[in-house]
Amino acid sequence: MSKSEGAELPVLDTGAVPCCPPIAAGELSPADAEKMAAMFKALSDPVRLRLFSKVASYAGGEACVCDISDVGVSQPTVSHHLKKLREAGLLTSERRGTWVYYRVAPSVVAAMSAMLDLRT
Amino acid sequence: MSKSEGAELPVLDTGAVPCCPPIAAGELSPADAEKMAAMFKALSDPVRLRLFSKVASYAGGEACVCDISDVGVSQPTVSHHLKKLREAGLLTSERRGTWVYYRVAPSVVAAMSAMLDLRT
Repeated sequence: MSKSEGAELPVLDTGAVPCCPPIAAGELSPADAEKMAAMFKALSDPVRLRLFSKVASYAGGEACVCDISDVGVSQPTVSHHLKKLREAGLLTSERRGTWVYYRVAPSVVAAMSAMLDLRT
Repeated sequence: MSKSEGAELPVLDTGAVPCCPPIAAGELSPADAEKMAAMFKALSDPVRLRLFSKVASYAGGEACVCDISDVGVSQPTVSHHLKKLREAGLLTSERRGTWVYYRVAPSVVAAMSAMLDLRT
């Protein structure tokens, strides 16, 4: 078994969410607002949002940086954006061999969706 | 009947949305990504997000700047944030007498929630 094979990057979203209550249920606390604003910030760049949608919609729900870098920016820029999405908890990643593979962190994205759900 | 009683707020978001498809349904187009990124950007500031939740959760679904400015910043800053939320289409506003009243634009917020709904 190679050194990198099967090595798991930390799953960043464990325990970090669900945050937060639905937006219409009551005033958001300053602490929850800080957390959620950071997540929305991660999606506030058009290229980052396209990369996020590419990962989310990729066959099998997982994409390598090599699969999704056709967004009109350099590969280092793609990697930078993916890192920001990972740091915000919206993507998880795993290195396998040469490449890092990304997945959407479903609980974090579900928390954002639920927060904006006015029906709840 | 007073001038303001029973007056309906204009629905400013008609026709502006729904944008966009659910994030897992396929790759977001560059144009849709621009639109959605601007909406997420409007929620990417903690104070702005708190103001948004205050409007959304205010009794009757409508709040005056006078009702919601206790977020630890000056009233001009509050007004600036509310303007940004309005420009992004997330709030609608109506001036009545001295004050401007804000409401959440439900279809815009629903579009953002639906876009992040991984179940669809």
